[in-house]
Amino acid sequence: MAAPTEEEGAVGPRCHHRSSAMLDVPFLPFCAFLGTLGLLCVAMVGTWCQHWRGGFSLDGSSRTFNWHPVLMVTGLVVLYGAAALVYRIPHTWSGPKLPWKVLHGSLALGAFVLTVLGLAAVFRFHNSQGTPNMYSLHSWMGLATVLLFSCQWVAGFGAFLLPWAPAWLRALYKPIHVFFGSTILMLAVASCASGINEKLFFSLKNGTTQYKLLPAEAVFANTLGLLILIFGVLVVAALARPSWKRPDSDSPDSRQ
Amino acid sequence: MAAPTEEEGAVGPRCHHRSSAMLDVPFLPFCAFLGTLGLLCVAMVGTWCQHWRGGFSLDGSSRTFNWHPVLMVTGLVVLYGAAALVYRIPHTWSGPKLPWKVLHGSLALGAFVLTVLGLAAVFRFHNSQGTPNMYSLHSWMGLATVLLFSCQWVAGFGAFLLPWAPAWLRALYKPIHVFFGSTILMLAVASCASGINEKLFFSLKNGTTQYKLLPAEAVFANTLGLLILIFGVLVVAALARPSWKRPDSDSPDSRQ
Repeated sequence: MAAPTEEEGAVGPRCHHRSSAMLDVPFLPFCAFLGTLGLLCVAMVGTWCQHWRGGFSLDGSSRTFNWHPVLMVTGLVVLYGAAALVYRIPHTWSGPKLPWKVLHGSLALGAFVLTVLGLAAVFRFHNSQGTPNMYSLHSWMGLATVLLFSCQWVAGFGAFLLPWAPAWLRALYKPIHVFFGSTILMLAVASCASGINEKLFFSLKNGTTQYKLLPAEAVFANTLGLLILIFGVLVVAALARPSWKRPDSDSPDSRQ
Repeated sequence: MAAPTEEEGAVGPRCHHRSSAMLDVPFLPFCAFLGTLGLLCVAMVGTWCQHWRGGFSLDGSSRTFNWHPVLMVTGLVVLYGAAALVYRIPHTWSGPKLPWKVLHGSLALGAFVLTVLGLAAVFRFHNSQGTPNMYSLHSWMGLATVLLFSCQWVAGFGAFLLPWAPAWLRALYKPIHVFFGSTILMLAVASCASGINEKLFFSLKNGTTQYKLLPAEAVFANTLGLLILIFGVLVVAALARPSWKRPDSDSPDSRQ
């Protein structure tokens, strides 16, 4: 390797630290921004379904379907993202870990319940309309995501919240749990994007303003899709950022 | 924080290292697996377009469109993934860095050229059919991804390959380049999934076997979509894995 010049050798590391410091965003303001973005996504998906798609009901009509996007975005993206970020809050780094584990598991459970209700909404709609379930790539991706999420929750509960999991098992499973934590969110976000795209093609057919003419609904829902993608990318980035990780995050998760 | 028990204190760290070692996958076999998976994705998207969608041409018909999925999967996913992983190859960690920088930039440029050709194919198809461009969420996501990719390539070339970029600028830009490297791949994969979903809804209408009846083409293309997602997730995971990073990856990128 070519030797660094004297100037680089002297300036490089200092520059690097100064530059890194320039890029350091404090976690809490970032988190407040993410929370606002998440709430905006929930508000927008609700507005889309209420204003353009006829609102909500439980009668098996397309108004039952409308619960599907609202519950998926709220549960599998926004609440899931909040659950994933619990251990990045600096306040959680001191004191007993158990309350934060319980909060993490409870938020994830809440996200899972909303997700299952969201699946129930689309299955009820399909069944009452005589439409087959589980044929599109969107449905395959979405169901794979929810199945992974259910395994993740059960395995996380068993390994980290039940007292009898041995330390070696926790240490073995922890990086797997962390990896699938981000993976599930990426898959959820990709599923949402394909679902919004699919729904707009279904809804904006020749009878109404076509999707290809880009009516206000299409602009609104496309923007929602982009905001969901940005939310997911920012959560995954926050999870991966070394300086925001719990200082003992590399240690075995054995303390309760 | 509750103090660890004596047993945990004694056993935990040893267990952790043993468990981490159990999860240690060597990079090169993983890379060979990823390469095989990437080639499988390219072969499958080519087979889909050749066998079910009528093959390829440059006449503005749907056979011109068929270049779009093939070039996007090949360029923006598989070749892009290969470019992103160059610095994870242990052979690149010793000796001069410049040849590997040139390889990284060249593979990324190859990926970008294929991507632009893939865009040209869909624009030519739309224009010759009188279909508007850029109305679906898929197209918005895809174009945002390509625009980010072009900024990423130009900024990476300017900062890391041109000799006059100052060390402080390289140090400042490097984590941004790394972050957007993974982000662009995630967006590319999400765009592919929504595109495959959309294309199947367009192609498998009432006239032929409907998508909802899940004909062989739908199973094949849905499987392709899932494999692309798995490829993207594995590349992003490999990029994030600390033990696979170039040992000096935290230093300012100032040596040529």
